[in-house]
Amino acid sequence: MILAMDIGGTKLALGVAGRDDFAKTGRLARIIKEPVPPPGTPEVVIPRLLTMSRELLGGDGVRLSAIGISIGGPLDHVSGTVVNFPHLPGWINVPLAGRMAAELGAPAALDNDANLGALAEHRWGGWEVHDMVYLTISTGIGGGIIVGGKLLHGIGSAAGEVGHITVQTGGPRCPCGNRGCLEMMASGTSTARRAREALEASPGDGAILRRLAGDDPGMITSALVLRAAHEGDRLAAEIWEGTAEYIAIGVGSIIHILAPQIVVLGGGVAQAGEYLLEPVRRRLRDHGTYMPLGRIRIEGARLGHDSALIGAATLALGN
Amino acid sequence: MILAMDIGGTKLALGVAGRDDFAKTGRLARIIKEPVPPPGTPEVVIPRLLTMSRELLGGDGVRLSAIGISIGGPLDHVSGTVVNFPHLPGWINVPLAGRMAAELGAPAALDNDANLGALAEHRWGGWEVHDMVYLTISTGIGGGIIVGGKLLHGIGSAAGEVGHITVQTGGPRCPCGNRGCLEMMASGTSTARRAREALEASPGDGAILRRLAGDDPGMITSALVLRAAHEGDRLAAEIWEGTAEYIAIGVGSIIHILAPQIVVLGGGVAQAGEYLLEPVRRRLRDHGTYMPLGRIRIEGARLGHDSALIGAATLALGN
Repeated sequence: MILAMDIGGTKLALGVAGRDDFAKTGRLARIIKEPVPPPGTPEVVIPRLLTMSRELLGGDGVRLSAIGISIGGPLDHVSGTVVNFPHLPGWINVPLAGRMAAELGAPAALDNDANLGALAEHRWGGWEVHDMVYLTISTGIGGGIIVGGKLLHGIGSAAGEVGHITVQTGGPRCPCGNRGCLEMMASGTSTARRAREALEASPGDGAILRRLAGDDPGMITSALVLRAAHEGDRLAAEIWEGTAEYIAIGVGSIIHILAPQIVVLGGGVAQAGEYLLEPVRRRLRDHGTYMPLGRIRIEGARLGHDSALIGAATLALGN
Repeated sequence: MILAMDIGGTKLALGVAGRDDFAKTGRLARIIKEPVPPPGTPEVVIPRLLTMSRELLGGDGVRLSAIGISIGGPLDHVSGTVVNFPHLPGWINVPLAGRMAAELGAPAALDNDANLGALAEHRWGGWEVHDMVYLTISTGIGGGIIVGGKLLHGIGSAAGEVGHITVQTGGPRCPCGNRGCLEMMASGTSTARRAREALEASPGDGAILRRLAGDDPGMITSALVLRAAHEGDRLAAEIWEGTAEYIAIGVGSIIHILAPQIVVLGGGVAQAGEYLLEPVRRRLRDHGTYMPLGRIRIEGARLGHDSALIGAATLALGN
């Protein structure tokens, strides 16, 4: 059996599969999910993960051959150490892979959720490419880069931090220190923020969006912006076009650096499908003629919510 | 012997070396250069290159083992075809490597000048890294990417086109179709253009720069801007800081995508050395805290004008 774990800021997910079975299908036989137990420190989360693992694996007769672990934030994939997981307290320099390997008696590997999303999409998305860039656009924006069929890690396992490409020169300050990062302009959170700012600046506009949000700007989400745009709200349509424009600028910079065969957009915001892909492709065509853009595909992710978990299982396969 | 060729918009350069000797030292035994013969079409340039090659190789007894060719612009490195060399007329879909191989009787390989500059800098710069990004900042801005010790080509041999990363959102239109490309803001040509625009907008400023240019804005170059800044010209200092800022934004985006061990800045504008490197490093530190920036070096190129030619010889070594 192989075991996959995905540690999120609010949720733990585990999956198991027979090794050969997973290697053929990319499907996990069983998945369990539960909220992160409070207070979310390694001291409570790791024992909980171990208990969940033993439950999932069942009796003593099961032979566990490898473990793959997904977590967000800076980590060292070589030593299997979580450097800092900012969404939960106390996760600083935790040798997580080593700990899991020792407790569960099988080799364990660790990588970040966006990288593992990329790995899953590359291996199981049916794209048949060797060079891929994967972006996950949800609360934040992350990414993973596949070169020659393998994940590119870079120094400090830091490659693929596409959320911090500059797309709005002199734009709003990002917590990273830079201004106008892609994540600050085009994530779900940022799209909602830009919509709230626009409503505040134009009290006479955005009637449909205001109504959909129940006149509470705090209720605005990127999905609501898209829905309002559909129902004919001009302000919402401009905000959504802005999101596509910023993503196109970021993808344009990525493409000119890497010239991958495909750019795959995943995550909650990308679930808009063609409503996001079409304007991104259009703006990329408008922007650049030097690149073989006709040959670089811009597509939506084929794997769903569990892509990081499936990526973790795929990582385990490599062991 | 190995033979290296560098075909530029105004100049042809050829070099030869003993294969073993070059593999040890990275030095060409002899280099010859001459202007591109008019009108610069393949019909006149290719025969001239062949004549120069035969002169350089000397008598019949010489055994040529491989040829490496450098040229700018879109090409297909796999088939050895120049897709379009925009600086000379008629260079469209020219199977240059095959032609040279047939005429000179040795295998020939072709790549673009920025990629070969990167290859040379990686192999002979003494950096001892496996992941490098090389930027050449002169009239235009190009680049080459080394991943795992090898050049990254991407689809259509188009990777490394770092001159078309967006660094000024909504900025001036680039011939590529995009706005605010790095090349449009920070190349030598663009730095001079920004200086001329600033002088025009502020008739009372830039007295030193005006004097150095002999009161002829057409004489302004990026080197003159740097010199005026040194002599205390505030307008020139702001323009030069702008160049460093745009390069830092571009390098910041590159770093967040690739996390290379080193970014090497080459080309005429980078000959400013620390006058460019210091402000670029400073602005990168100001910008980003998520990256292991302390571990990513930003350095000036160690190879000089002939880096593309040396890269072409290095490419020949691979044959």
